[in-house]
Amino acid sequence: RIDGQRLWRSLMNLADIGATPKGGNCRLALTEEDRLGRELVSSWLRDAGLTIDVDQMGNIFARRAGSRNDLPPVATGSHLDTQPTGGRFDGCYGVLAGLEVMRVLNDHSITTEAPLEVVIWTNEEGCRFVPVMMGSGVHAGVIPLETALAAKDRNGDTVAASLERIGYSGDIPMGSKTFGAYIESHIEQGPVLEAEGIAVGAVTGSLGLRWFDVVVTGQEAHAGPTPMPYRRDALKRAAELIGDILALADPYQPHGRVTCGEFDLYPNSRNVIPGRVTFSVDIRHLENETLEQMEHALQDICSKHHEPGKVTVELQDVQRVPPTPFNSDLVDLIRASSDGLGIPYRDIETGAGHDAVFISRVAPTAMIFVPCEDGISHNESENATPEDLEAGANVLLHTMLRKAGI
Amino acid sequence: RIDGQRLWRSLMNLADIGATPKGGNCRLALTEEDRLGRELVSSWLRDAGLTIDVDQMGNIFARRAGSRNDLPPVATGSHLDTQPTGGRFDGCYGVLAGLEVMRVLNDHSITTEAPLEVVIWTNEEGCRFVPVMMGSGVHAGVIPLETALAAKDRNGDTVAASLERIGYSGDIPMGSKTFGAYIESHIEQGPVLEAEGIAVGAVTGSLGLRWFDVVVTGQEAHAGPTPMPYRRDALKRAAELIGDILALADPYQPHGRVTCGEFDLYPNSRNVIPGRVTFSVDIRHLENETLEQMEHALQDICSKHHEPGKVTVELQDVQRVPPTPFNSDLVDLIRASSDGLGIPYRDIETGAGHDAVFISRVAPTAMIFVPCEDGISHNESENATPEDLEAGANVLLHTMLRKAGI
Ligand SMILES: NC(=O)NCCC(=O)O
Ligand SMILES: NC(=O)NCCC(=O)O
Repeated sequence: RIDGQRLWRSLMNLADIGATPKGGNCRLALTEEDRLGRELVSSWLRDAGLTIDVDQMGNIFARRAGSRNDLPPVATGSHLDTQPTGGRFDGCYGVLAGLEVMRVLNDHSITTEAPLEVVIWTNEEGCRFVPVMMGSGVHAGVIPLETALAAKDRNGDTVAASLERIGYSGDIPMGSKTFGAYIESHIEQGPVLEAEGIAVGAVTGSLGLRWFDVVVTGQEAHAGPTPMPYRRDALKRAAELIGDILALADPYQPHGRVTCGEFDLYPNSRNVIPGRVTFSVDIRHLENETLEQMEHALQDICSKHHEPGKVTVELQDVQRVPPTPFNSDLVDLIRASSDGLGIPYRDIETGAGHDAVFISRVAPTAMIFVPCEDGISHNESENATPEDLEAGANVLLHTMLRKAGI
Repeated sequence: RIDGQRLWRSLMNLADIGATPKGGNCRLALTEEDRLGRELVSSWLRDAGLTIDVDQMGNIFARRAGSRNDLPPVATGSHLDTQPTGGRFDGCYGVLAGLEVMRVLNDHSITTEAPLEVVIWTNEEGCRFVPVMMGSGVHAGVIPLETALAAKDRNGDTVAASLERIGYSGDIPMGSKTFGAYIESHIEQGPVLEAEGIAVGAVTGSLGLRWFDVVVTGQEAHAGPTPMPYRRDALKRAAELIGDILALADPYQPHGRVTCGEFDLYPNSRNVIPGRVTFSVDIRHLENETLEQMEHALQDICSKHHEPGKVTVELQDVQRVPPTPFNSDLVDLIRASSDGLGIPYRDIETGAGHDAVFISRVAPTAMIFVPCEDGISHNESENATPEDLEAGANVLLHTMLRKAGI
């Protein structure tokens, strides 16, 4: 059985790195804060007797030997990077629940048949560098290594340079690591489990997502003397576009999601009519067919607002991840472990992307969710109860044991 | 008579400092580029035999002695700072037309009765630091010196620190300089003169302006799992607000102007529902009464969209400048000088703020406009013809001579 207090203490110690005034975390991928987080957790993993490898993407693999080391490892993990105004649990819980599993096995001197691994994936959040779920995506062969290494943040800094700078450009070639199974635990980041008072979600699959950029180009001009009819105001058009684009989700409730989260205005001066706006569009749905319809509707909206010679609208592809079902045997094992522990669970889908989504392409994969307060995530006030985190980690422990064998 | 080619050459030499790829200028107030511009123009003014003083706001006063130095000087001038994507003429023309007047008088060894001054005002543009027209506003006693020195840019850098850094924190106390008259020449920055094929505008006064910030506060949450009805999306609300706010100008055509030029979204991450948006509102009209109505309408729009517990909207005052008539005797003198030179002119109002607007509170003030291409300003492609610039400078020369006496 998991030591819930030890797990909680580890989470709170990690949350001191990149702590924000409102009680959250800012540990953007491949920054100094990310490095400090990686160092701290790696030291804990080493103290628990695990051996550590780092691959070319900076993914960290911590291995606990089994009695039959010819078997592929049963892995768990998640990420340590956060959003700019992120919480203390998103990602960290998955990594530290894995660490706690290793510590409990040490406490009871248990050796599994298959080796176990705790993995820390690089840049899951996708806010500093796109594509999102980058480390796991490259591991799974979905994202080319070169694409990932060349990705740039807003200041033109690359993933390759950032990996070098924080000392996490590892020597393990991509793809040389394989898993017998991958089970990731995570907070739900939505309202379902809390609303129903259920401690554990057996995640059956994930929504698909499509990411775009919209570039609206008008013409800079003076806010004072320029008569209203002469204006080619990129912000005015962008505001109309955003209204139409967010309404795109309406016909597809309750599963359709549309978000514009990034917004850049140029030249951004109080007395200049905006000449250019770039904003992001994030579309999600359970069914690929609906995603397709939503993308078509998005294209129509952009065409409708595109007015050559006045204000132009360009739609750019950024990333697409199809809806992904998890491995049903492994989901069954999670259900069985919950039952065995007497922990109430329900099936659930994830609206968030996770490293598990990409890993499911190369290994049997599933996820364990626990409730988070008010369903709020990607927010400094993100919260979860020690009891729920402990319950989820117990399910993880028993699922890994069943899978790895004793 | 003005040497139009010499004036043009000076404009083009100055435009090399802070030149942008698209043929414009980025010389933000009190930056290194601004310092270089000030140094270059000061060296030209000194070469023309003028003596230079700098006041506590970094305003530069270059004086050409008269035969009766007990008389208050007849002054001209403008500013050298630009917008981030500014042009080569906005401000610079007013300063360099003044320089050219001095050079022509030197060429003909003319001494005026009253001394003459060319003034370079600090931070007219108001894009790096608010309030706008800062140096002239402090000179005129409209803006307190302490307020101006404490103003911060987006990075928290102050005017006081920036003045020190570029070596333009002068020792002349504010208010110790007075003018017998102030005549500023400037490009129109609007379409009227060009459309009518008229070289000179006798500016009778300026539109009033009111500046505000609107702060929209929602709640950050995850773009994936957060169901649409739960969202407190600050960007969605901001887009609605901007649509309503820009339409505010509709009932007040052709003189009403509304612009939202600055826009900041937080936390600005692709997969985070925006928690906060701050944007600027710039409202202009010829009549104070109408400005008052427009402000009331703005307040109503903000109230309508303010929804406590969901998304809140706060309207903040930034700056207000009332509509300002210029000195009618001085405007008459400009008309008479144009007539005397056989240069076609018309009366015009300015939709842009200018240093002259604040100086008019402490000295008889007027302005001379020349056409600019397509009425486009605050844009790198801002343009004007050497002929029009020469015509305007000739009117300036003769108006200053009439006012100062020979
Ligand atoms: N779990 C999580 O927050 N992932 C970030 C990727 C996304 O779903 O946008
Ligand atoms: N002339 C000019 O561009 N002034 C800037 C101040 C304003 O009118 O916004």
